[in-house]
Amino acid sequence: MAEIINFSETARSTDNALADLQALFADDLLGVESGISKHMQSAADLIPAISEHLIGAGGKRLRPLLTLSAARLSGYEGHHHITMAAAVEYMHTATLLHDDVVDDSDMRRGKPTARKLWGNSASVLVGDFLLGQAFRMMVAAESLPALDILSHAAAVIAEGEVMQLAAMNNAQISEDQYLQIIDAKTAALFSAAAEVGGEISDASPAQMQALTSYGRNLGIAFQLIDDALDYGSIEQVLGKNTGEDFREGKMTLPVILAYHRGDASARVFWETVMAEPSEIDHEARFAQAVQHMSETHALADTVARATHYGEKAKDALSLFPDSETRAVLLRLVDFCIARAY
Amino acid sequence: MAEIINFSETARSTDNALADLQALFADDLLGVESGISKHMQSAADLIPAISEHLIGAGGKRLRPLLTLSAARLSGYEGHHHITMAAAVEYMHTATLLHDDVVDDSDMRRGKPTARKLWGNSASVLVGDFLLGQAFRMMVAAESLPALDILSHAAAVIAEGEVMQLAAMNNAQISEDQYLQIIDAKTAALFSAAAEVGGEISDASPAQMQALTSYGRNLGIAFQLIDDALDYGSIEQVLGKNTGEDFREGKMTLPVILAYHRGDASARVFWETVMAEPSEIDHEARFAQAVQHMSETHALADTVARATHYGEKAKDALSLFPDSETRAVLLRLVDFCIARAY
Repeated sequence: MAEIINFSETARSTDNALADLQALFADDLLGVESGISKHMQSAADLIPAISEHLIGAGGKRLRPLLTLSAARLSGYEGHHHITMAAAVEYMHTATLLHDDVVDDSDMRRGKPTARKLWGNSASVLVGDFLLGQAFRMMVAAESLPALDILSHAAAVIAEGEVMQLAAMNNAQISEDQYLQIIDAKTAALFSAAAEVGGEISDASPAQMQALTSYGRNLGIAFQLIDDALDYGSIEQVLGKNTGEDFREGKMTLPVILAYHRGDASARVFWETVMAEPSEIDHEARFAQAVQHMSETHALADTVARATHYGEKAKDALSLFPDSETRAVLLRLVDFCIARAY
Repeated sequence: MAEIINFSETARSTDNALADLQALFADDLLGVESGISKHMQSAADLIPAISEHLIGAGGKRLRPLLTLSAARLSGYEGHHHITMAAAVEYMHTATLLHDDVVDDSDMRRGKPTARKLWGNSASVLVGDFLLGQAFRMMVAAESLPALDILSHAAAVIAEGEVMQLAAMNNAQISEDQYLQIIDAKTAALFSAAAEVGGEISDASPAQMQALTSYGRNLGIAFQLIDDALDYGSIEQVLGKNTGEDFREGKMTLPVILAYHRGDASARVFWETVMAEPSEIDHEARFAQAVQHMSETHALADTVARATHYGEKAKDALSLFPDSETRAVLLRLVDFCIARAY
């Protein structure tokens, strides 16, 4: 089911820019991890148990790394970037807990979800706790403008999730509607994470715009690649974690492209399988979905769209002078897109 | 099933202090309502629909009134108390949306719950949106100490809900454990609502302590009366909204008192019905529960406990000079307790 297409050498790059970024901020990340551990303690045992399950087990820390990088790019010399980065990861984790409830997800990062292990109620409430703690941490960093950025992002993320919920099972949404959804549900936090790093550093308005643009476009690219991966990586056979979006009738760009480009019978197929996901026919339907995507180049072009946003992200950073941090952030864009292969 | 007991004339007072408080702050409340309406607008239609259903239909606005009152008691002359009060109501509404999901509730304030009408997913996400908006409003009020108070309360409320979830179906929890739960899940927001009113007014440390104490103790009293009401008002026949806590196996003070004071067979009864709520036997079991409470004076003494906290709340306000606001706040305590009759 692989699609044979051409990609730039850049996008094929397999060097691990994320690992390099983690190495570059190893000291700061120790502080972030310590802040993360400290704020999940509670007299209610479920809180550290669930928090540890999801946040303690060492995620990529991609969003906090954006905060740390933005602060360093902007010449920050204080210590609030650590607290702010930990707060960003808490916000992210709170949304994951709630997303898994909303999506009825059973697996995340190769492990059973919190809702599978502890139930929906506990997941909702511990998500609320983490969001409250995130705001406490942000307050501790004593920047009202940074708080404004992150509280705005919190509302926008929820707004994006609600829009996605309303678009569920509807094969006819447009690419633009979909971009509005992921701009809110995913890119808003990438953007805010970078912005607050600049904000606490008193970055110039132009630098703030650059950081916003980098975060936002990287976030969109990241989400589009995630969408493509749900239908299998482009050059490899389908993995075990594919088909979740399809199973839920969740509209993503590969589906939107395949639907718009498909013939009448393909459109009937998409309208049916999106509107009425079926566990019984899942395997056969999913194979047919991937076949339709292959015929319409939907996956390859989803990656092409992601590459477009990735390029915008990279150009945004030109405003900052050359530095090791900037170089790794540029490579990070390619790395995120290369996940699709 | 009524219990015949003596109550102070104060507690029997039937004058409507809440209506008086609303009248006293009529102008401010117009501003609060306007802030509430403004911040529920969104491109995602579900957001204003659900928000309007729950928050727009005019609740008591008890918590925002605490913020407004505390600001006036502390001599505040700015305009941020309006924004802060609206933010407090948003926080409250967000917790209601999530509570109804956690409790599987079908009815609230005599109407179907949002989760019943729009589903659990929408309720979780719109709750998240309202919480994000609450923080945005707080940021707009430009007080880091007030933000600290409310973000701390947000985490503590969730912590209380998690503790309550862990105590579900367990008839053996102690009164002290239970007080810890309601101190967090209910009293923390009453307290924070009053505190931020003082905080933005530069109230003295002693005044801040007084406002915290008033809010907290009023909150505990309010919750205990709510708990009693779920098993029917004391002097009237059981209403239509009783039995919800019992149906869910939710531990509350009336159950704790009846369990601790009951004989061996009563304890077996409580252990059974709390551990395994049953829809089939509900009516018969509920009647027996109320009978046990009557025999052990559990409802009357829950009200007595509430009265104790109410008195603490009133004493806390002695620190403020006599004023119309203070007088109504004192009567508000009696009004909250008189709901039990």
